Amino acid sequence: MPSAPLPPFIAPVPLPKAVRLLNHGPTVLVSARSGGRQNVMAAAWACVLDFDKLSVVIDKGAATRALIEESGHFVIQVPTAAQAPLVRWLGTHSLHADAQKLAHSGARLFDLPGCPAPLVAGCSAWLACRVLPEKRNELLYDLFMGEITAAWADERAFRQGRWQFESAPEWRSLHYVAGGQFYATGASIQTEPVDDSD
Amino acid sequence: MPSAPLPPFIAPVPLPKAVRLLNHGPTVLVSARSGGRQNVMAAAWACVLDFDKLSVVIDKGAATRALIEESGHFVIQVPTAAQAPLVRWLGTHSLHADAQKLAHSGARLFDLPGCPAPLVAGCSAWLACRVLPEKRNELLYDLFMGEITAAWADERAFRQGRWQFESAPEWRSLHYVAGGQFYATGASIQTEPVDDSD
Repeated sequence: MPSAPLPPFIAPVPLPKAVRLLNHGPTVLVSARSGGRQNVMAAAWACVLDFDKLSVVIDKGAATRALIEESGHFVIQVPTAAQAPLVRWLGTHSLHADAQKLAHSGARLFDLPGCPAPLVAGCSAWLACRVLPEKRNELLYDLFMGEITAAWADERAFRQGRWQFESAPEWRSLHYVAGGQFYATGASIQTEPVDDSD
Repeated sequence: MPSAPLPPFIAPVPLPKAVRLLNHGPTVLVSARSGGRQNVMAAAWACVLDFDKLSVVIDKGAATRALIEESGHFVIQVPTAAQAPLVRWLGTHSLHADAQKLAHSGARLFDLPGCPAPLVAGCSAWLACRVLPEKRNELLYDLFMGEITAAWADERAFRQGRWQFESAPEWRSLHYVAGGQFYATGASIQTEPVDDSD
């Protein structure tokens, strides 16, 4: 069965290189959908767990958590520096308090084949995840583990296995600190010769 | 009992603000000591788990892992951009293959009161951790959880609860990607008015 064409600029990232989308420790957006409801939250505490796994801390009070628990799926996406106000807004407003949170946020969602959770437009990369059920971690630490089932990136931001921030600074990622302050990803530091075959 | 004076520029970070040392997702160095042996490794997969906890992925082949398992303690420290070659070197050389790894690395270690693990000099921040034993996570995912027992920062890099990278760019953190490439932390993005009381 031929797969539907992807949106412009969006390309699959081979799974062995998908962790490079998160290795640099960006603040992410977490999206999920269940029974016709969908939501997006911000998370600074997300991390690679293995070359095909990641982890993310999701508070018990987060509306997105129930959608993840019900559906067993979520997407971790990497927002851009230009999206800082959106990320802050999504991280400080709850679907519990505002049933129209997504509409009010201005976030636009889209779908990709084989990914049950919605994706947030304008991000630089997306990792589709299936929940690896680890109830003790979820209950005791609010830690959710996900198996990365597919990954995509905007080729203007990430291609040939590398971020392209040097030539495309508007795609730099966000790194949250506190009180609405983020840092953008900065200058590249290459400690050894570039291996283009890698 | 009066505590020993801290080295110049190093100040305690109150625990509620200690997670700000890691929120921005830096690549870290992990140090540990047991029975007179000590080691330091690099880790890109470290993350805040809660306001008093963090997690770090440590491969079964890492010599530092045995020191952590034996002692129950480790330090997560935040290296600076200037330390990129050291971080890369520590991340690509094993104590298993070179019994003089630390001496050959050029890393200088020091101690602080109440912290059984050694600290790496020249970093911007240090989080002393006690292992939260979660054997399933350690065995299945190589994931170690730590309770943060104390934290310190170099006041030239982090003071009053905030990183000072704008006025002290040489203290910016490192964010690893792949193949010896890091990004330094970049420009500050403030999405709402600064709250100096925070």
